[in-house]
Amino acid sequence: MNEFELIARLTRVLPVNATVVTGAGDDCAVLDFGLADKLILFKTDAVVEGVHFEQGAPPEKIGRKALARCLSDIAAMAGTPDAAVVTLGLPEPFKPETVEKIYRGLSALAQKYGVAIVGGETTANPERVFISIALLGTVNRGKQILRSTAWAGDAIFVTGELGGASAGRHLDFEPRLDEARWLAEHFSVHAMIDLSDGLAGDLRHLLNASGVGAELMKSAIPMSRAAKEIARKNPFGKTPLAAALSDGEDFELLFTVAAGDAVKLHDAWKKHFPKLKLSCIGKIYAGEGITLRDKSGAQQLDAHGYVHFT
Amino acid sequence: MNEFELIARLTRVLPVNATVVTGAGDDCAVLDFGLADKLILFKTDAVVEGVHFEQGAPPEKIGRKALARCLSDIAAMAGTPDAAVVTLGLPEPFKPETVEKIYRGLSALAQKYGVAIVGGETTANPERVFISIALLGTVNRGKQILRSTAWAGDAIFVTGELGGASAGRHLDFEPRLDEARWLAEHFSVHAMIDLSDGLAGDLRHLLNASGVGAELMKSAIPMSRAAKEIARKNPFGKTPLAAALSDGEDFELLFTVAAGDAVKLHDAWKKHFPKLKLSCIGKIYAGEGITLRDKSGAQQLDAHGYVHFT
Repeated sequence: MNEFELIARLTRVLPVNATVVTGAGDDCAVLDFGLADKLILFKTDAVVEGVHFEQGAPPEKIGRKALARCLSDIAAMAGTPDAAVVTLGLPEPFKPETVEKIYRGLSALAQKYGVAIVGGETTANPERVFISIALLGTVNRGKQILRSTAWAGDAIFVTGELGGASAGRHLDFEPRLDEARWLAEHFSVHAMIDLSDGLAGDLRHLLNASGVGAELMKSAIPMSRAAKEIARKNPFGKTPLAAALSDGEDFELLFTVAAGDAVKLHDAWKKHFPKLKLSCIGKIYAGEGITLRDKSGAQQLDAHGYVHFT
Repeated sequence: MNEFELIARLTRVLPVNATVVTGAGDDCAVLDFGLADKLILFKTDAVVEGVHFEQGAPPEKIGRKALARCLSDIAAMAGTPDAAVVTLGLPEPFKPETVEKIYRGLSALAQKYGVAIVGGETTANPERVFISIALLGTVNRGKQILRSTAWAGDAIFVTGELGGASAGRHLDFEPRLDEARWLAEHFSVHAMIDLSDGLAGDLRHLLNASGVGAELMKSAIPMSRAAKEIARKNPFGKTPLAAALSDGEDFELLFTVAAGDAVKLHDAWKKHFPKLKLSCIGKIYAGEGITLRDKSGAQQLDAHGYVHFT
């Protein structure tokens, strides 16, 4: 049983109550507290030293990343973030400067997006820094975009360029909050997820939640300069395509719209976000799994989100 | 600079926004999302293996404790808990049974208090189990009880019996949610806090937030059977009174009411909660610090929440 299977198993038996619109399993939980025009979004995420950042990474960037990951989940629901609470696990004795720097990075990003930091706990975690953040947001009632509502025939889009985030971008990516809200306002986005586990893995989450399959066009998948650079330096490592599919921590948006909206969306996007690439990378079909197609044929991605390139 | 000083320093510069009624520094944050009759409560807390529970403690009880601590903070605001998200940091390879047992303990307590679990992340934390929980709740608008509103002349009350929680009670204490809401409904409670750091430490938090001092009557401080038992077995260790003042993790309610309400409150409490002791332990006065009085005189508690018994 891997992590995803375990979580899926646990998720089925978690207690719910009358306020729950969407519980565990999507990018955020959606709660109805009785506001006329809004629903509440609720999310937690953590970064751990040696797992999500290296020892010696600048504390400001660590704090920033911890919050940015949660903001990316709010973006994936087309929501607006509002307030965060922070739990810091710290080796003892901790340096007050380190804590202040973590909070400085975190607070600067919070301020940029209008997020209040309304609680901060610290505890000992003797071996490594552990930052857990919980974030509250809102979304216009009925406008939340789930993972589970992709339709056969949809076009699949992804923002930005993928792969190689570990070379640096994972510490200073921009959560796609403005882009997601613009999408939700101007188009009927059927399903959306943010890319944390890698395109192949997160697309699979979306497909499984929606009960559909997908075909990707190999040549349309946007590969980052960092992924190409890493592949050039290490010819025996991942190809840029493999990196784009499986590296993770891109924190771009993956979403689907009706095929008929694809061209109009693409044109409007270019006008509104000229600096951020948007790629139509494939389509949703009835069925299951992910097929990767180029002119020479098609291959299946395996169940763990990896393709074995030959 | 100790933890409290650092947090106080950080708290002064945290970003806020228009939804924040009470930010970091109280038992919960209080947020105004525009609900006619309710405010939102928001809180995070964590338990760490080797810090808040011993390696080998039953996973069900660890999960239960992690949530119970947050529930106790909602109680301290006289609120009603609603939904929680959970971050689990786990040594790898983790046993799925352990995770399931943690969730079982957590879910059972959640169900008891009508709390939905709406999100669960897991991450690696190689050396020890780390559980961070964030909890959302509500409180009737204007009925939240802060730490910062104790008045000179108030009587100070505490529920239950204090000290010795590490002998076992810290893993199965009952958060005082019903009691706190009953208090808020029937009496004008001026200030309230839950006891996590120990009576002396948490009373000091309340006093500092309110800008007042307190005098405690030594003989009125309720000492637990566990504290007495521990002192009996180790005559060179803490006295039961020292344990009641400084052990921590009692998760009882400490609150103040106008002196004129004290007798009426005490009588009503006995009728409504016959099984849970309520003690009037002293009074608030204009000034600062904590004085501990018995028939032979008075002594000051030191700045770190400890009294040096001679």
